Amino acid sequence: MIRVFLISLIVFIFSNVAKTQTNEEISADIIRTALEDRRGYKWLEQLCDIGPRLSGYPDSYKAIEWAQSVMHQANFDSVWLQPVMVPFWERGSVESAKIISKGKFKNQELSVAALGGSIGTNEDGISGVVVKIDSFVHINNQDLDVENKIVFYNEPYDQGLVNTFAAYGKAVKQRTRGAIEAAKRGALAVIVRSVTSLNDNVPHTGIMSYNDTIPKIPAVAIGIRDAELLSLAMETQGVLKVEMKLSCVTHEPKLSYNVVGEIFGEKHPEEIIVVGGHFDAWDKGHGAHDDGAGCVQAIEVLDLIKRLDLKPSRTIRCVLFVDEEQRQSGAHAYAAMIDSLKQTHIAAIEADRGAFMPRGFSVSADSLVIEKMQTWLPVLRETGIEWIREGGSGVDISKIKNAKALIGFVPDMQRYFDYHHSANDTFDKVHPREMELGSAAMTILTWLLSESDL
Amino acid sequence: MIRVFLISLIVFIFSNVAKTQTNEEISADIIRTALEDRRGYKWLEQLCDIGPRLSGYPDSYKAIEWAQSVMHQANFDSVWLQPVMVPFWERGSVESAKIISKGKFKNQELSVAALGGSIGTNEDGISGVVVKIDSFVHINNQDLDVENKIVFYNEPYDQGLVNTFAAYGKAVKQRTRGAIEAAKRGALAVIVRSVTSLNDNVPHTGIMSYNDTIPKIPAVAIGIRDAELLSLAMETQGVLKVEMKLSCVTHEPKLSYNVVGEIFGEKHPEEIIVVGGHFDAWDKGHGAHDDGAGCVQAIEVLDLIKRLDLKPSRTIRCVLFVDEEQRQSGAHAYAAMIDSLKQTHIAAIEADRGAFMPRGFSVSADSLVIEKMQTWLPVLRETGIEWIREGGSGVDISKIKNAKALIGFVPDMQRYFDYHHSANDTFDKVHPREMELGSAAMTILTWLLSESDL
Repeated sequence: MIRVFLISLIVFIFSNVAKTQTNEEISADIIRTALEDRRGYKWLEQLCDIGPRLSGYPDSYKAIEWAQSVMHQANFDSVWLQPVMVPFWERGSVESAKIISKGKFKNQELSVAALGGSIGTNEDGISGVVVKIDSFVHINNQDLDVENKIVFYNEPYDQGLVNTFAAYGKAVKQRTRGAIEAAKRGALAVIVRSVTSLNDNVPHTGIMSYNDTIPKIPAVAIGIRDAELLSLAMETQGVLKVEMKLSCVTHEPKLSYNVVGEIFGEKHPEEIIVVGGHFDAWDKGHGAHDDGAGCVQAIEVLDLIKRLDLKPSRTIRCVLFVDEEQRQSGAHAYAAMIDSLKQTHIAAIEADRGAFMPRGFSVSADSLVIEKMQTWLPVLRETGIEWIREGGSGVDISKIKNAKALIGFVPDMQRYFDYHHSANDTFDKVHPREMELGSAAMTILTWLLSESDL
Repeated sequence: MIRVFLISLIVFIFSNVAKTQTNEEISADIIRTALEDRRGYKWLEQLCDIGPRLSGYPDSYKAIEWAQSVMHQANFDSVWLQPVMVPFWERGSVESAKIISKGKFKNQELSVAALGGSIGTNEDGISGVVVKIDSFVHINNQDLDVENKIVFYNEPYDQGLVNTFAAYGKAVKQRTRGAIEAAKRGALAVIVRSVTSLNDNVPHTGIMSYNDTIPKIPAVAIGIRDAELLSLAMETQGVLKVEMKLSCVTHEPKLSYNVVGEIFGEKHPEEIIVVGGHFDAWDKGHGAHDDGAGCVQAIEVLDLIKRLDLKPSRTIRCVLFVDEEQRQSGAHAYAAMIDSLKQTHIAAIEADRGAFMPRGFSVSADSLVIEKMQTWLPVLRETGIEWIREGGSGVDISKIKNAKALIGFVPDMQRYFDYHHSANDTFDKVHPREMELGSAAMTILTWLLSESDL
């Protein structure tokens, strides 16, 4: 009888200790575990080794299998795939541009990469005189003659801005809209100065648009040094011709999948908190920062909660959205599904700004919800989070309706556009401690969201 | 007459516009200029190309000449050298350790670097059985026998701490005190696990101490992977012998110099604000983060003020302190000089934590002064500065007496100990935008200090 009593007492004490762990203690455990184990970082290395995850690419399916397998091994309560039809644009093996005019620059090869969605050329390529445009808006100058010519958009990235996303946003229109505007004026093709903060010669790709009522023309990004070289060659020679060859092609859409993993809530399993990133990536690098890291961090949020034996009150769901880079078809499909199932989403967190040092959370929510979340800053600050404020969340989660809070994880942004959409975006560019502190910040926030009544 | 009036009016308007530029406008100009021109970053590349700047080293004098020349070219109002006697410890060409016991590890070379100040060995080297100590405090275990043996301090750096300086502080005693404690017990030499956050095989050096009443024994740092290998070899073989050869030597002290540059204040030239870093660096890498960057940022503070034609009310003085790494003789000499000249120092800012993204300023001052400084946060925030709070400042400026505020620039600290005191600390590890935002943060703070009455 005494033995039973003692055992009961011990069980009571232990369960009570578990129950009374403060948020500060839980936060400290999460941070130390993330930094010591580096499990997300090790996963990222595995993911980067698989191969290009661009929608429809063969390796993208291997990556999806890998993610399922990681979630199963981490003992998530449920792991499943949501079918999504995705675009399938393929770069192909031929991708070149060179100067063909006589003179000292003849046969100078240029470092280029087809923009995502671009049509290819035929085998002989396209050649034409180059017309340079130093600011995207100048494409609308009435006296500009680009007919049967190649338009070279050379608007620089503004290094003077602290906000690198603002600098990107200013310069990226020449990439997204350049082909349409040039084709309206009869151009043959476009070459776009890479939108990047790094002054190297690696071309940075990314999505571009066509308009069905306007001819489609090929479009490439050019490395910064070769953009400078092309400018110099034009100044030196006056009229300059370039030849481009591209074998990229758009196939029929393919079936792919969002990968979803869950830990069921103990008290309110029907109330869901999503944490996610996008699983596709441009094919030139590993998609390490954009957005392999965000996906792995999202998996790690659930894994840390499991590893520390925390029992969340609400369901925590990790969603790896397919095809953010082209049509956001994964995000649309997810939002449509939860609408039709009438699932309740309390909050969603998206990580898609690189795995750099945590700085803040940008929240789209009622001001009272944001005020409540701001009271959690003391618990988050150790991870590097300094602020929680109103702002945009993320491309994928922004499709979710009726969530009380849509939250973007905001790490430091100074290095992101060195790597973004290019062969520079490789695993070695991710710092393990910076990445794991991001995982920790998101895990703590997820835990607080789960245990609070927003 | 009307013409004279108009000219006067124009002159009046322009001078008035200049006078009424707000701190917000000045701050924006400083940030954009730093990010666009990257002048400090270009200087850092030049400095890193010169060669090792360890006190007494030949290239340290070339670096001093270079710094003077940069300050002259930047048109500082005064540029001068303060003579300082500095220690002269030289690494020499021989620096090796290998396993000499029979077995599968025989002749395995270990990646080591003499600790700063260590004595050398004779040409035949020192050999002995290795005794491993997993926590520095265990050296005092009474039943430990290290007599005529080589002590291998293998206390790991604590990756679980967010504060990397705290992790460094915990583990570094084995480096600074290890030889003394081992020699007390009759050891022949010490091998110290590198105190670093990076799991590579590059040894991280740094100062070590002797005590004149205790025998001096040689001391080396060992790369992390070889620390693990050595542990494994000891576990595998039981008794393991290692041989060490070092040709490092301590010469007589030499004459060197603090480099000082100034812009004279317009209203209170006798009131000085110092901004500085230390100009010496360990010899294995470029001393890029530690502390070439801090020095170049200090020069850039004055240069940005000049470049933007700001007229500070008080004198802004850049001090590049010689010999921080060994005896802080530059700092002591500077403090003694200003004492004897009775110069008034309003404030001093030190940059010696790497050229990473700005986070805050740590201030040693009266709480009312700190409160006043905190009102400047809105003007500083764009550079990344999130906080100003009470705390330590810097090793060099802390010798300055009677300043109203001693201020340490605190950038993000996650990557610093990857590079610190090792061959990893090279120019390519510095990010231009992170570094220039640091320069901008210090320039804005210097300007505010100069124009306010603390």
